[in-house]
Amino acid sequence: MRSGTRIQIEIPDWLESEARGCERLETREQRMAFAIRLAQLNIDRETGGPFGAAVFERDEGGLVAAGVNLVLHSGYSFAHAEVVALSLAQRAAGTFDLAAAGPPYELVSSAEPCAMCAGASCWSGIAHLVCGARREDVEAIGFDEGPRSPDWVAQLTARGVPVTRDISREQAAAVLQSYRARGGSIYNARP
Amino acid sequence: MRSGTRIQIEIPDWLESEARGCERLETREQRMAFAIRLAQLNIDRETGGPFGAAVFERDEGGLVAAGVNLVLHSGYSFAHAEVVALSLAQRAAGTFDLAAAGPPYELVSSAEPCAMCAGASCWSGIAHLVCGARREDVEAIGFDEGPRSPDWVAQLTARGVPVTRDISREQAAAVLQSYRARGGSIYNARP
Repeated sequence: MRSGTRIQIEIPDWLESEARGCERLETREQRMAFAIRLAQLNIDRETGGPFGAAVFERDEGGLVAAGVNLVLHSGYSFAHAEVVALSLAQRAAGTFDLAAAGPPYELVSSAEPCAMCAGASCWSGIAHLVCGARREDVEAIGFDEGPRSPDWVAQLTARGVPVTRDISREQAAAVLQSYRARGGSIYNARP
Repeated sequence: MRSGTRIQIEIPDWLESEARGCERLETREQRMAFAIRLAQLNIDRETGGPFGAAVFERDEGGLVAAGVNLVLHSGYSFAHAEVVALSLAQRAAGTFDLAAAGPPYELVSSAEPCAMCAGASCWSGIAHLVCGARREDVEAIGFDEGPRSPDWVAQLTARGVPVTRDISREQAAAVLQSYRARGGSIYNARP
């Protein structure tokens, strides 16, 4: 057996600073603008792919955790922005189940979740999922959403996670295009 | 922003010991017996749910990494056995893409993957997925496979991850039943 005894991801310093400067955002558009800014900064700082996400208190707007795609940075393929944000929120809450942790939480992601992240959203205890870019926008630059169920929105809703889409979709899609224009790596793609 | 700056999972000592004692398993049935034993030990040691998984060299049978469900132990809802095993394999390989790391790898799991883990399998770089218990066996004790696509086997196969099911299914299902008989926690379930 060759593997180690720990799974560990260090969050980049810039992300921590960015999150520290943001305490409360009232509207969905403000929260999405924050997630989109994280996606753009992740490109600019060269720490990963063009995806950002954050967990907020759904009603009060307090920021609980911020995440970006850290697949290249961390060496773990599960380190999508959504999983990073959810995991940091769970660490802060001290439980794997955010529904048991306090007020209802929502995950705001600069793009629709892939198959893995749609599943992860169901297990996290969030009460709402908000998405910016659509699947078509993500696939247009070469990424793959994976084996996601065609009725994923209904399936998440049935599990207590209603989904709101197309919040600031154009701005979110523009960040994806800027990643392609820069020649960013399209990881996780098989020939 | 209240979250920390690190995502970290410590692997239980018993799992490391168990894995150290297993270097090479020739057949799929032997590899599945190992994954099922991990699931049973995870119940006995009270470190999590009744699921075990391991990454092997597909052709030579060398054990690369072993995982169990650590949701309760770690406080992270993503810490399913499959993600733990894949992540430890990626850490050992030094890359998020196991397909770039050496010989073809396969993931052997004591149960079919949930929606999240089916997606995670696609992003990991494995070349084959082997499952023991079926969805029906998992759901029979109250767990949920989540928003998994009905054609997930075809979708994984199309992405370079063919799936072999029903290896030692009865033994795998018996471990699930023993967990229920013991009154084990059914986490990640919403009312």
